[in-house]
Amino acid sequence: MLDPGQIKALTFDVFGTVVDWRASITREGQALGRAKGLDVDWTRFADAWRGLDQPAMDRVRRGEVGWTKLDDLHRMSLVQLLGDFHITGLGEAEIDELNRAWHRLDPWPDAVPGLTRLRRRFILATLSNGNVALMVNMARRAGLPWDAILGAEVARHYKPQPEAYLTTAALLGLAPGQCLMVAAHNGDLAAASAQGFRTAFVARPTEYGPGQTRDLKAEREWDVIASDFVDLAARLGC
Amino acid sequence: MLDPGQIKALTFDVFGTVVDWRASITREGQALGRAKGLDVDWTRFADAWRGLDQPAMDRVRRGEVGWTKLDDLHRMSLVQLLGDFHITGLGEAEIDELNRAWHRLDPWPDAVPGLTRLRRRFILATLSNGNVALMVNMARRAGLPWDAILGAEVARHYKPQPEAYLTTAALLGLAPGQCLMVAAHNGDLAAASAQGFRTAFVARPTEYGPGQTRDLKAEREWDVIASDFVDLAARLGC
Repeated sequence: MLDPGQIKALTFDVFGTVVDWRASITREGQALGRAKGLDVDWTRFADAWRGLDQPAMDRVRRGEVGWTKLDDLHRMSLVQLLGDFHITGLGEAEIDELNRAWHRLDPWPDAVPGLTRLRRRFILATLSNGNVALMVNMARRAGLPWDAILGAEVARHYKPQPEAYLTTAALLGLAPGQCLMVAAHNGDLAAASAQGFRTAFVARPTEYGPGQTRDLKAEREWDVIASDFVDLAARLGC
Repeated sequence: MLDPGQIKALTFDVFGTVVDWRASITREGQALGRAKGLDVDWTRFADAWRGLDQPAMDRVRRGEVGWTKLDDLHRMSLVQLLGDFHITGLGEAEIDELNRAWHRLDPWPDAVPGLTRLRRRFILATLSNGNVALMVNMARRAGLPWDAILGAEVARHYKPQPEAYLTTAALLGLAPGQCLMVAAHNGDLAAASAQGFRTAFVARPTEYGPGQTRDLKAEREWDVIASDFVDLAARLGC
C-alpha cells in the first residue's frame, strides 16, 4: 500500500500516457494531405512512424550510434516513411514542419485537469524519451503544468535503461522511492520499479486504436492503478 | 538593435536577477536565530555565504573536484561559516534545513508579473548555477512560470564556462542567437555573448545591499537594457 506522504514527485511517461499521439499525428497528416493533395492513410502512417521509434532508439541504446535526440530519430524515420508511402513533392521545410507534429500532440481530456490537481501536492516532471525542446513546445501548446522537463535527453539514455530513471530522480534531489512513475505501459513501470521508483498505471486502452492488444490493463500489482489522471489525483489524496 | 522576432527563448540568471537572495537568506537566518536564541548578524552571514559560492565553484571549474551540485557546495560552505560565526547547537537536520534556505528565496516584486507577460511570447528557461531541485522548489514556492529548468547542473559545468550556455541552447533545440540571456551581472552577459547569445541587462542595484559597487549599470551596449522585468516585457513587445 502506497503512502502518498512518502512521495515527493510524480514522473510521467508522456507519449500515450499524457498525450494521444495517434490521433494527433493522424490529424497533422490529414491537414498536410489536404493542403498538398496527398492520398495517404494517415492513421496507418502514424502507426508506422511510432513503430519505428523503438528500432531507432535501440540503435542508440546499443551504442551503434552516439546519443541522438528523438526529434532527429523521428526525422530519419520520416524520410524512410515518405518513401514507403510514396509521398513526394515535400520540400525540406515541409518535412521539418511535419516532423514537428510530435511537438503538437493533444493531451487526453483528463490530463490537464488531473495534472493541475496533482501539482498542488507533488512536483510534476516528465520522464519521457522525448527530447527537451519537444516536451517544452508540447507543454506550452497543450497547457501541461510541468515543474521540470527531465528524462532521456538530460540522462543521454533512453528508457528503459536505468540511467533515464536514476538521473531524473537525482536531478530532482530525491531518492527513487520518493518518485512515483506514472505510465500507461507495464514495461516502463517494470523498469522504473527495478530502480526503486514507486509505480502508477493509468490505462489508455485506445492509444493504439480500437484493436489495441497491449497494455490494456495492469499486468502487475503496481502501487496505484487508476482509470485516468483525475482518478489518479483522487487516489493520491489531491 | 534587437529584433524580438528572432528570439525564441529567454534564459535567466536567477540569483540576484530573479530573486533577492540577500534579504531572503537574512530572513531565514533571523527566523532560525529567534527560534534557537542565536545572536548573529544574519545579513553579514548571508553575504559571507554567497561570497563562498565562487571559490567553491572554482574548484569544480578547475577540475580539482568532480561535478558537485550547488546544494552540496552550499552545505560545505555552511559548515565552515557556522564555525566562523561561532554558531553552535544545530543538529544535522537543522543544518540541512538552513541549507535549503536557498530553495526559499523571494522574487523581486517585478519578477512574477514580468515573467508572466514574457511567457506569452517566449520560452522561459533558467540558466543558473543553481541545481535543478533548488530551482524547482524555488519556482513552486515563488510562482516562477519557467518552461524548463536548465543551466549548470544539466550541463555539468558552472557558468561562465561555455558549456553551461551552449548545452542550454542545444536542449531548447535553438541556436544561441535565438536565445536572450537575461542577467543583472555584466560578466554573465559577456560570457553568454561570447557563445552567441543575445543579451539583456536588468539592473538590481541593491542585490548586494545599500553599499553595492558592482553591476550598478550596464557596462557594455547589451542588446536590451531594462530597469526591471516589466520594463523588459514592454521592450520586447509583450
